[in-house]
Amino acid sequence: MQLIDGKAIADIIKQEIAVEVATIKSMGQRPPHLAAILVGHDGGSETYVAHKVKACEQCGFDSTLIRYEDTVTETELLAKISELNNDTAIDGFIVQLPLPKHISEQKIIEAIDYRKDVDGFHPINVGRTSIGLPAFVSATPAGIMELLKRYGIATAGKHCVVLGRSNIVGKPVANLMIQKAYPGNATVTVCHSYSADLVEQCQKADIIIAALGQPNFVKGNMVKDGAVVIDVGTTRVPSTTTKSGFKLTGDVLFDEVAPKCSYITPVPGGVGPMTIVSLMRNTLLAAKKELFK
Amino acid sequence: MQLIDGKAIADIIKQEIAVEVATIKSMGQRPPHLAAILVGHDGGSETYVAHKVKACEQCGFDSTLIRYEDTVTETELLAKISELNNDTAIDGFIVQLPLPKHISEQKIIEAIDYRKDVDGFHPINVGRTSIGLPAFVSATPAGIMELLKRYGIATAGKHCVVLGRSNIVGKPVANLMIQKAYPGNATVTVCHSYSADLVEQCQKADIIIAALGQPNFVKGNMVKDGAVVIDVGTTRVPSTTTKSGFKLTGDVLFDEVAPKCSYITPVPGGVGPMTIVSLMRNTLLAAKKELFK
Repeated sequence: MQLIDGKAIADIIKQEIAVEVATIKSMGQRPPHLAAILVGHDGGSETYVAHKVKACEQCGFDSTLIRYEDTVTETELLAKISELNNDTAIDGFIVQLPLPKHISEQKIIEAIDYRKDVDGFHPINVGRTSIGLPAFVSATPAGIMELLKRYGIATAGKHCVVLGRSNIVGKPVANLMIQKAYPGNATVTVCHSYSADLVEQCQKADIIIAALGQPNFVKGNMVKDGAVVIDVGTTRVPSTTTKSGFKLTGDVLFDEVAPKCSYITPVPGGVGPMTIVSLMRNTLLAAKKELFK
Repeated sequence: MQLIDGKAIADIIKQEIAVEVATIKSMGQRPPHLAAILVGHDGGSETYVAHKVKACEQCGFDSTLIRYEDTVTETELLAKISELNNDTAIDGFIVQLPLPKHISEQKIIEAIDYRKDVDGFHPINVGRTSIGLPAFVSATPAGIMELLKRYGIATAGKHCVVLGRSNIVGKPVANLMIQKAYPGNATVTVCHSYSADLVEQCQKADIIIAALGQPNFVKGNMVKDGAVVIDVGTTRVPSTTTKSGFKLTGDVLFDEVAPKCSYITPVPGGVGPMTIVSLMRNTLLAAKKELFK
């Protein structure tokens, strides 16, 4: 069993990006610039945005954090998005989700210029990813693909079972794994809460990508010997053994599953760090204006 | 075994649409108006467009056929598309594919205003379909979903195997079958030329949607008893027994497979007629401006 070290790979990629940014600066150009809009004071959102700002520093990017109280109106947010769309000093920006209930997340996402949509949530980027055109691929699926690539894991013709059908992970990663590409060219099965045959599907899978958000859902008896297991789950489970009072817990019961695997990602330290680094890569792509001509 | 009569269902839907159009006219409004651009003289394209024009008549729509020789330039086509985008008398329009090699199909598709893209090929409509938002769903996948619905075929929790991963059928029908909806909520497996386990996947499938474009590919031994089989294939195979000199042949070896099925679509007369009727429905939706507000 080999552990897939997402943290180490993410560090390498950040260094690669930093080298490229240094080259850009040495040519007299400004560095890539990411803006993030954060509404309210949700603990998880605060942490994620802080990590993103820190990653920008590590990559040599400029970053701008725009904060609103959770009383902000949809109109105010849309006005700010329009301003960022037209600001040539900003290459890409994100609106940290979730948003307060009085604001339509979908409306906000669709207001973002798809050429600055480094989260890859705009329907144009979702559609282009599915068609196989250049696009901002959303960060978690892009991070998973990068891990498979960096570890040289074979995917062509393999049976890949995706657990979960969220717009942010399950659907896009399934769409990527069936593309004519590497990683890709897999036989892909998407399972979810309605699937009658979820356990049997997992038992035959060469690759399992677990993105249900159900802690320790995938047990040892659900995984065949030699399988590759990618754990996307990051549920905060209350814990008395940590300072924060919770423990990030994956969808995979690691201790049971790991001994059977050829490769497995831990939680934390697996897919998580790759998600932020994929956002950095999308921001670099946005700055270079290479995707959309 | 019950035959799924796509022709009969398509006729019923055309009547339903005609009734709605009559109501629209009785309120003093103009009928829905579809335009089609046809480039060159490809036999298949001529036939498809003629069928679409005829279906418009049956539904009470206005239709406009715009013909170009295959020497037309991309610039000329793009100018016509821009004109149609801005023409308030046209509700929706299609550009019949394939196009001559000197014209980029993708560029043409993306030039169409997504609110008039009744073929559902624009990345915005592809992305919105995947996310589960209101969208123009491309005609063949929409027709398949409608057949499943009209025959009351259970899909929730069933294992649906999609053969083929084209942008026009395989990918979108897979994306529809995993949505939280009826038809949908299926466990969906997408198989293709790289799939090592294609035969085994089919043998366990409750529903097979065959869209490979390989005549008679699905044999009797690949289908379990009681399966639902949807045959999307329409390859023109040379034949001495027909006046036209060819025979439309599906991806399913009908005589072997049909006796094992609970439901099966024939070729011709299955999915084909539903494809055109889905285009009519999209045109009606475009005229009513209900999808995008």
